[in-house]
Amino acid sequence: MRVGVLGSGMVGRTIASRLLELGHEVRMGSRTAGGPAAQWAAGAGGSASAGDFAAAATFGELVVSATAGAGSVDALTQAGEANLAGKVLLDVSNPIDTGGPGPVTLTVANTDSLAEQIQRAFPKARVVKALNTMNCAVMVRPEAVPGEHVVFVSGDDHQAKQAIAQLLESFGWPEARIIDLGGLATARGTEGYLLLWLAIWQAVGPGQFNIVIAQVPAG
Amino acid sequence: MRVGVLGSGMVGRTIASRLLELGHEVRMGSRTAGGPAAQWAAGAGGSASAGDFAAAATFGELVVSATAGAGSVDALTQAGEANLAGKVLLDVSNPIDTGGPGPVTLTVANTDSLAEQIQRAFPKARVVKALNTMNCAVMVRPEAVPGEHVVFVSGDDHQAKQAIAQLLESFGWPEARIIDLGGLATARGTEGYLLLWLAIWQAVGPGQFNIVIAQVPAG
Repeated sequence: MRVGVLGSGMVGRTIASRLLELGHEVRMGSRTAGGPAAQWAAGAGGSASAGDFAAAATFGELVVSATAGAGSVDALTQAGEANLAGKVLLDVSNPIDTGGPGPVTLTVANTDSLAEQIQRAFPKARVVKALNTMNCAVMVRPEAVPGEHVVFVSGDDHQAKQAIAQLLESFGWPEARIIDLGGLATARGTEGYLLLWLAIWQAVGPGQFNIVIAQVPAG
Repeated sequence: MRVGVLGSGMVGRTIASRLLELGHEVRMGSRTAGGPAAQWAAGAGGSASAGDFAAAATFGELVVSATAGAGSVDALTQAGEANLAGKVLLDVSNPIDTGGPGPVTLTVANTDSLAEQIQRAFPKARVVKALNTMNCAVMVRPEAVPGEHVVFVSGDDHQAKQAIAQLLESFGWPEARIIDLGGLATARGTEGYLLLWLAIWQAVGPGQFNIVIAQVPAG
């Protein structure tokens, strides 16, 4: 599969490299061609390339939004609505407000979510939110953390969610640990969890942790 | 110990009954004396009593805020600032906005929390947030759910948090599963988690579940 990965930070590079390893062709996009995305591609072999956001979105059958969340809608606007139309758009980012002093806050929360903002801005994209509840090393290699920890999927397009579930399985997520939360509005829950994630990280660090759902056994 | 429990709903009754079972004296408070609080006390034996919010707060060496979160500050105002001064105030509620249509939202989130609102309104109370990340049956009997699931504690008063940790241990929480997240502002994380809790509940139900933190083993 051809995948466009928007974002050349740690999350984008980690996902892009894992996709290459699994045999996909990957074009990493950044604000301007060159820079970290081109550097990544230069060292990543023949299935890797780089360009600006539009070039990456055009290339991808699947597009991954892995820029800093506060800039995701801008980045996707540069990527171009037409280049996203009809495609599965996997949003893995959190809308962290990097501007203010004091505790970390989100640019959108509670009554809305970044994933919903993206879906409203690009109504023809098939937005799926997933993987935003953990460190990127855990996203692409869940076996890095022991235990039956889970990944959440939110989206309004059932087939798009199925495609993402398949991708997650290829990353190493067992089907039983991929939790479909329902519609895209449930991303309010997974994005809002970032504040708890940060507090847990401060309390128990390092960042390679994730949550398991403990339940009373059925029956 | 004498405990005042504010709130005669399911959460208040569950906590109050467990406290009685552990040998404490409990006065349950409600908006007006009589009603469900008096009913509960009538069936709960000699260590149980009921009254209005002020009577319960006056009675308690420890006060538990277990009303619906959207009404907690009002209830505590009726309880009386002087009756809370110097006391540990355990806030277990979530600020659910019960008014609107559509998905559940919170009355405060992201940049503030109910726990912080309470602390600002009652600066002499020693507010600790805990237990608000799970069903009340799990709060008071963690063994109801198998696995190493956890409870979070937030607060600015270290001694008050230690007192609550002891209470949690008496409920059955092993020390290693009581996670001190730090200052009271970390309640933004545990309160915001309510939206994810609800989504998980919808996806995997029933409500008797909780989260385990899976980590790479130390060393």
